[in-house]
This record gives sequence, C-alpha cells and structure tokens, in this order.
Amino acid sequence: MDVRPPKAGNEPAPHLDEPRSSGALVYDGRLLKIYRDEAIAPDGVQCVREFTLHPGAAAIVPLFEDGSLLLERQWRYPLNRSFLEFPAGKLDPGETPLQTAQRELREETGYRANRWAELGPMHPVISYSTEVIHIFLATDLSLGETARDEGEVIDLVRMSVADFFVLVESGQVSDAKTLAAAFWLARIRSGDYRPQWTLSESV
Amino acid sequence: MDVRPPKAGNEPAPHLDEPRSSGALVYDGRLLKIYRDEAIAPDGVQCVREFTLHPGAAAIVPLFEDGSLLLERQWRYPLNRSFLEFPAGKLDPGETPLQTAQRELREETGYRANRWAELGPMHPVISYSTEVIHIFLATDLSLGETARDEGEVIDLVRMSVADFFVLVESGQVSDAKTLAAAFWLARIRSGDYRPQWTLSESV
Repeated sequence: MDVRPPKAGNEPAPHLDEPRSSGALVYDGRLLKIYRDEAIAPDGVQCVREFTLHPGAAAIVPLFEDGSLLLERQWRYPLNRSFLEFPAGKLDPGETPLQTAQRELREETGYRANRWAELGPMHPVISYSTEVIHIFLATDLSLGETARDEGEVIDLVRMSVADFFVLVESGQVSDAKTLAAAFWLARIRSGDYRPQWTLSESV
Repeated sequence: MDVRPPKAGNEPAPHLDEPRSSGALVYDGRLLKIYRDEAIAPDGVQCVREFTLHPGAAAIVPLFEDGSLLLERQWRYPLNRSFLEFPAGKLDPGETPLQTAQRELREETGYRANRWAELGPMHPVISYSTEVIHIFLATDLSLGETARDEGEVIDLVRMSVADFFVLVESGQVSDAKTLAAAFWLARIRSGDYRPQWTLSESV
C-alpha cells in the first residue's frame, strides 16, 4: 500500500518522479512506522526508499508584547542532550494544524494567545520522513495552567529576539523548526516580511 | 549498546537527562538504523524512545559573484513530490563535514568553490534521529564535471536571493536545511551577520 501523500496536481517537475514498484511496513513502533519501498529512479535504476510515516506537527513562536520570545529547553534522547526550541507537537487525529498549535502552546507552556499568524510549512527530513511542521506566530499571550504529558519535563526560557539570534549564530540553537522560525523573525525584524494576523483562538 | 553521541561536558540542563535503561537495534535497513530504547524521564516515568542512527551530513549554499544562488530540484520519495533545496549529502566514513560539502558540491552540481565559510549546525529532527547537518557557504565558484550516483537525478536552478526569499515566504521552499540557510542569508542581507571566509578547497 502506498502510504505517502497523494501526488499534487501542480507538481513542477513530473519528469523527476520515482514511481513505486512495491513495498511493505517493516517496523511498526510506538512513534516510528518504517516503510521500505522499491521504486524506479528517473534514470531507470531500481532503488530502495526507506522512510517513516508521520502525522505532521505544528510549532509555535510565542511573541510577548515587549518583543521577547518564549522557548523551551527539553531533553532530546537521540542526541543525548537538551535543546532550546520553540514549542511544538504532533497533530492528533482530526486536528487542524492551528488547533494543534493552540493545544500544544497551552499544554506545554500554559499560555493562550489571542492573535495568530501562519508563517509557513517546513519539511524537516525530506529524505526519510513524511513529516511536515506548520509554523505559527502567536501573540497577545495570557498565562493559564500547563497540562503536560507524563514524561514531558520542560524548562521555559524567555529571551529577546536579539539574544535568540546570538544563540543561533553561535550554533547554540540548532533545532530545525526553531531555525526555520528564526528566518521569519529575521525578515520581520529587517522590515521585509509582515505577518498576516488573520487567525484567532479557535478552541 | 548506547549508540547515541556521548554526553557533552557543558550540558546546560543536566536535570533534564533521560538515562537509558535498555534497548536494541530493531530495524537494520539500507539507510535507516532504528533503535528502540527504554529510558527514565526526569519525572521518573519509564518511556520508550525510538530513533534512527545517522552519520551526519553537510549542506552547501553556493553563492555566485553576481549574488545569485544555486539550488537543486530533486524528487523526494517519502513526500511524493520534488523539492527545491541546497545541495547536501551524508558524511562518508572518515570525512570531515567540510570535505563532504566540497565533494557533494562537485559531484551533484559540477562546481568547485575556492572560498568557504561555516554557517552553523542544524539538527533536522531532534525527536527521532541523531542527524546533524553542517551548513557551509561557498563562493568563488568554477564549473567542472558532475559525478552523480546511480539513481540521483537532479535539476540545477540558479536564482537571485530576492527570488529565493519569495519562494520561502510563499511556502514553495520548505526543506529544513534550506530554510536554516535562508536564516543566515537574511541576516547577511540585512547586514547583521558577516560570514567568516576562513576555509578553502581541501581536496
């Protein structure tokens, strides 16, 4: 069974397509669902493509009135260290990315935001995952209660955008979704990008 | 066996550590090496951590004298579509990230660069992979021969930085390493970041 997203009608490079020949689910774990497919590369070569099926995720850039940002520090087991990153989480079944963003912001940080802008999609690992992360900017923040999952232990860190850029440029912030958000923050700061505050709290 | 990177001496949040209890290699594929570990979260909860072991990678931002960029369009099987992205590739055994960057730029695009600057590290998927991508800026480019792998079919696309930003801001460029590079390009363009051209062709 082909579990990948359906092909888009506006694909700009159909001549690069790698048609699927066959394949199977080879590891059905808690988080990881690994598929191993055989496909035909555009040069006619038979190739093996391994990937994990992912439900998608949403990430939030919480921006306070004073211009400061809210980040999280969390242990990231595969890399055996903690990372400074923007809040994020996987889409639950039936959720829109905006609903996920609003739920995760509440659950992980305790904050609600009244004004939301979509920044853009980000594909963290196009070579071996179907994951897409929808990135949102959130402001007009008010503090309530957190509701973290078991095993989810998080330090909250508030800092200025200038300090955040220093951490990125010195390699101390290196998480992909957080760097993608840093692009939009840099463009907003230089006056080249205006967020569209068209979304609001939906839950 | 713990296959993760060793713990760093300068870890800023040792209280968030998730000590490993046990684990095993559960899928040994061509690209993906999936480990399933049990660990203890900081709140004492036993948890399962699944991840793939990755050798690391290097990505290159090729910048021409006229200020234009070189990107690639490639089919990305898991997402069933093509992506516009900067050249990149996995580290071969014994290679430094700079050597990988210089080899991949030659093999995939045919270009050599005489001046190199390291931009920074990027961790594409801190929740389920050990992968790190080292991002380099490369200039003083001269064209030679490509040497692509079998099954590696690539369209080369040259564009201005302004056009590249339009594609990112409209969601048409969404690959993580390419967005991370876009952060540095935005900061260079706004005059806030100066690349350190300290590296040269080493091979």
